[in-house]
Amino acid sequence: MPTFWTRTLIPTLRQVPAEAEVPSHQLMLRAGYIRKLAAGVYDYLPLGWRSLNKAMAIVRQEMNAAGANEVMLPVLQPIELWERTGRRRDYGENLFIVQDRHGRHQALGPTHEEVITELVSAYIESYRDLPLNLYQIQTKFRDEFRPRFGVLRSREFQMKDAYSFHLSLKGDGGLDIEYQNMYATYCRIFEACGLPYEVVQAESGEMGGSGSHQFTVLTPTGEDTIFKSDKGNYAANLEKCEVGPRPHNFEGKATGELEEISTPNCPGIEDVCHFFKNKLGSKLKTRSILKSLVYVATRSSDRSDERTAKDTYYLLAIVRGDHDVNEEKLRACASELLGETAHIRLAPEDLAQADGWALGFVGPHAFNGREDTYLVVDPDAAQVSFWVTGANEVNHHVKHFTWKREVPQITKHDRIKVADIRDAIEGDPSPKNDGGVLNASRGIEVGQVFKLGTKYSNTLDAAVLDNQNQRKPIIMGCYGIGINRILAAAIECKGGHDEQGIIWPAALAPYEVLVTPIKFDGQIQQVAEQLAAQIERATPNQNYGPRFNVLIDDRPERPGVKFADGDLIGIPLRITIGEKGLKEGRVELKTRNGETSEPVPVDQAADRCVELLRNL
Amino acid sequence: MPTFWTRTLIPTLRQVPAEAEVPSHQLMLRAGYIRKLAAGVYDYLPLGWRSLNKAMAIVRQEMNAAGANEVMLPVLQPIELWERTGRRRDYGENLFIVQDRHGRHQALGPTHEEVITELVSAYIESYRDLPLNLYQIQTKFRDEFRPRFGVLRSREFQMKDAYSFHLSLKGDGGLDIEYQNMYATYCRIFEACGLPYEVVQAESGEMGGSGSHQFTVLTPTGEDTIFKSDKGNYAANLEKCEVGPRPHNFEGKATGELEEISTPNCPGIEDVCHFFKNKLGSKLKTRSILKSLVYVATRSSDRSDERTAKDTYYLLAIVRGDHDVNEEKLRACASELLGETAHIRLAPEDLAQADGWALGFVGPHAFNGREDTYLVVDPDAAQVSFWVTGANEVNHHVKHFTWKREVPQITKHDRIKVADIRDAIEGDPSPKNDGGVLNASRGIEVGQVFKLGTKYSNTLDAAVLDNQNQRKPIIMGCYGIGINRILAAAIECKGGHDEQGIIWPAALAPYEVLVTPIKFDGQIQQVAEQLAAQIERATPNQNYGPRFNVLIDDRPERPGVKFADGDLIGIPLRITIGEKGLKEGRVELKTRNGETSEPVPVDQAADRCVELLRNL
Repeated sequence: MPTFWTRTLIPTLRQVPAEAEVPSHQLMLRAGYIRKLAAGVYDYLPLGWRSLNKAMAIVRQEMNAAGANEVMLPVLQPIELWERTGRRRDYGENLFIVQDRHGRHQALGPTHEEVITELVSAYIESYRDLPLNLYQIQTKFRDEFRPRFGVLRSREFQMKDAYSFHLSLKGDGGLDIEYQNMYATYCRIFEACGLPYEVVQAESGEMGGSGSHQFTVLTPTGEDTIFKSDKGNYAANLEKCEVGPRPHNFEGKATGELEEISTPNCPGIEDVCHFFKNKLGSKLKTRSILKSLVYVATRSSDRSDERTAKDTYYLLAIVRGDHDVNEEKLRACASELLGETAHIRLAPEDLAQADGWALGFVGPHAFNGREDTYLVVDPDAAQVSFWVTGANEVNHHVKHFTWKREVPQITKHDRIKVADIRDAIEGDPSPKNDGGVLNASRGIEVGQVFKLGTKYSNTLDAAVLDNQNQRKPIIMGCYGIGINRILAAAIECKGGHDEQGIIWPAALAPYEVLVTPIKFDGQIQQVAEQLAAQIERATPNQNYGPRFNVLIDDRPERPGVKFADGDLIGIPLRITIGEKGLKEGRVELKTRNGETSEPVPVDQAADRCVELLRNL
Repeated sequence: MPTFWTRTLIPTLRQVPAEAEVPSHQLMLRAGYIRKLAAGVYDYLPLGWRSLNKAMAIVRQEMNAAGANEVMLPVLQPIELWERTGRRRDYGENLFIVQDRHGRHQALGPTHEEVITELVSAYIESYRDLPLNLYQIQTKFRDEFRPRFGVLRSREFQMKDAYSFHLSLKGDGGLDIEYQNMYATYCRIFEACGLPYEVVQAESGEMGGSGSHQFTVLTPTGEDTIFKSDKGNYAANLEKCEVGPRPHNFEGKATGELEEISTPNCPGIEDVCHFFKNKLGSKLKTRSILKSLVYVATRSSDRSDERTAKDTYYLLAIVRGDHDVNEEKLRACASELLGETAHIRLAPEDLAQADGWALGFVGPHAFNGREDTYLVVDPDAAQVSFWVTGANEVNHHVKHFTWKREVPQITKHDRIKVADIRDAIEGDPSPKNDGGVLNASRGIEVGQVFKLGTKYSNTLDAAVLDNQNQRKPIIMGCYGIGINRILAAAIECKGGHDEQGIIWPAALAPYEVLVTPIKFDGQIQQVAEQLAAQIERATPNQNYGPRFNVLIDDRPERPGVKFADGDLIGIPLRITIGEKGLKEGRVELKTRNGETSEPVPVDQAADRCVELLRNL
């Protein structure tokens, strides 16, 4: 049965809403797909929910075909589970916590590793019950500090999350095989959605684990940055991307005597450059500054938030002024230095000041004489050059900083390390060390797969007996897809929208066909309803959904209004039925992507629609 | 593609879990449909989620066919919306409230009248955009004081909630017509689910509004009580059921002098009866006691929780000792007395004591001389009889209470009212006053429909312009179905389970067919997979779901274990394939309901399955 425009709710807006920065956000608001209820919280109106359902149906179809089993786990999760894995601390304020009437605390699930590991550990006893893959498509919650970009970074969203369980990493039934299975399944899902995507290596971040890939849809305005070597043999996201070898050098000659300069109220890199230009009359490039950041590192085995001398260290990270510290790389480096998985965070101001750090004016030589500090230097900063850096005294910097002279132990201290700790940038050498150069692109992350290993099974005591009757921790993988992001990415990517509105691929369109009668009565109405019925009876050319869905614009509006709204909501195929055409026995078919616009005899129109939809 | 038992998660249990009181709870736990994560919070395992999905598909299909449009509204709802409608107070501690990182409060939606009214008021301006029916199927939250009965009274559950919007109550496009449409749709839904249900008049309770019907599945252990007149012309639930006329009488002769008795530590009806029997040696029936309950009544226009003399009144409710006060009836009565919609609640102890009420020992004559109190007497209590009641003094009662003597103004005071304020009981006269008698049955409420009227559009300012360009508040209806309760009701109702386990109707079964190979290898395996494929290719005999789903029990277990587990999980049709049968070219078909058990030639087995499923 077709839907009539007047009997559903499609509140289109002429104005671009002021708060919307990116095209997907603007268009989903304007085309009546979503409505903002609160910061990062959206109503999905009928069109938005239909599109979201089509994305979910594709995900469900492919996950089932891949042998995964759908479940539904609770939103409300006892906070104790999150404390046992240490993730209550890791998530921090991003975790919504609700207190019930009896005073117990529950997290609103942003993800379900804890809950599903508890579930599996309760039931799975033998290696014979493995492997197993369980998934769900569900509303998740994340208390974003600054929700934005519409459904791209919201506080309540739809996720598909899958979890697999294995006795071994390698071989039959092992994690590696299921990881490949999920990888291939994700490729099929994003292809079926009609999205141009790239798969790149990724960091596993707060998920933990040993390996990860990210699925990213290339869009000019995307929040995520990915890098690909021009040799075609390396691709990774910003968090993960290694930078190729850059030899370091501490040995060369100083550029001059160390000279202290008064730099009042210039804690930042840009501040210092401006000060040099305006007050000293000399041009200072950001790349001539050594940026020194003070972190606190904690061993992950320590669950408390209290700092004790025993288990907390400072990490003094040095990168070139035009580079950014990559916290994942720095964390990996801290883990190596501490000999155990480490957590890091920027040193809190009060703590650092009490411990003698001149925050904003720190230089690498602050390391000298400190027993509580590790010094980590990026290779691009570990060079002999003209350097300006902090003087370790508030409102002061130094020029002619020279590593060997200012930090005499630089090459022979076991708390000093040179390591790749910065974000890659366009033009960096590929880590493959084959002369390749890294090129950057922007995109929207729509999925990620992780090899979790035993992070959760160890902390939640999930083990099975192997065929030798030995207890082994279950090895896990996890696999996420941001369902709402599929829609946003489809709109943001090349060909996904134009000045007039959204251009959906048929796979994600709320309706595949829009019937636009110039005036909804008499013979026009009859033909409109008859064509809609014919198209809805046809068998779709794809696996998804049992039939095509047709929207009839039965509003008493001028044709111009109907055409504009039709373009705005982005239905891939429009049939226009007018009096003049009907007299000649034909209607107009027009694809939203502009490729086809043709008159078709009424009695061939339905067949031609189905044919055209094959390629939309 | 069939599902293999070893590749999914069906953790059956031999023991009945101690915490489960009712069959649906016991069986859903034992058959591996659900797992308890926390009080009133359940994981839905693969079988449970499949059944829930089948119920949702039926609901969705019928709602769409009825012209409703699916949306998805947020779980997180700004608390301000709940304050504007006064429902933050009405819901009280049942409402989960979460504070976000910026200190703002959000309710976790137990229902969505506020959110959808806000949405519709933002977009709908003209009567031309009406009528409209929007619905969603979604996870809801309710902080039950005592969650129990498994998925019947849980804190997180799936609801279908629909909301309709109208210019008028009567006529084309009016609420009455859509209410009938939804009523008929609900009948189709519960019939399609294969449930034995009754429709009865219901109270609209905290929803507000003017009319309501409840859909109840009859089960011996259900929490809900419904009444039907034996004349067949009246049916209502406990909250709503009126009791037929019972003439009252204040005029007859006293049974004796008013006599005060010391009744130490006997605040309750049963306490007093025991005291009479054990200490006084005389038998006192509960029906000879006047039960006096002290309520506080507030006008709904008053949003504050503070009591001020101006707007709060006491309501002294008197019923016979063997009867229970019906708070909905009492509230309606209070509304009449106060001339405005009233809220009532039992008087808080500290407040009542401060105001001189001897709680536990109150008698009707406490009314005398109080300016702040209304007295409401149920007809069965408004009689001349031997009455024992409270003496209005702690630890004391009186005998020979006589209305006319003890409350001289009983027939001539405008703050005194005789009204039906008690729950109906088995054998009561029908309110139709036709000699009919009310019979009680127990059941599970699975759905309710409400005429909300303008309760929400008034408080949230949702109005449209009518064809005279006059602003009119939108008239609303709302329509709920408890999805999880459909499953529980199907198990609890007649024929829904036996000693061995669940007996699903095909419409709700996670799989329609269970293939049980005695040993999963060789020719048996081949036939099992071939039959499964044939059945999954067949076209179902109903509208729901595109195909049949088959589960193959490929476990290396003894036949007895497989049969027991198969009976426990309740798949309606089982095909048993054994070596001996195969040699003779046949397999065994057995329906879970015990109606059919027959050998069938292998090459006719799939067709016969499809035929049998037509009636399951």
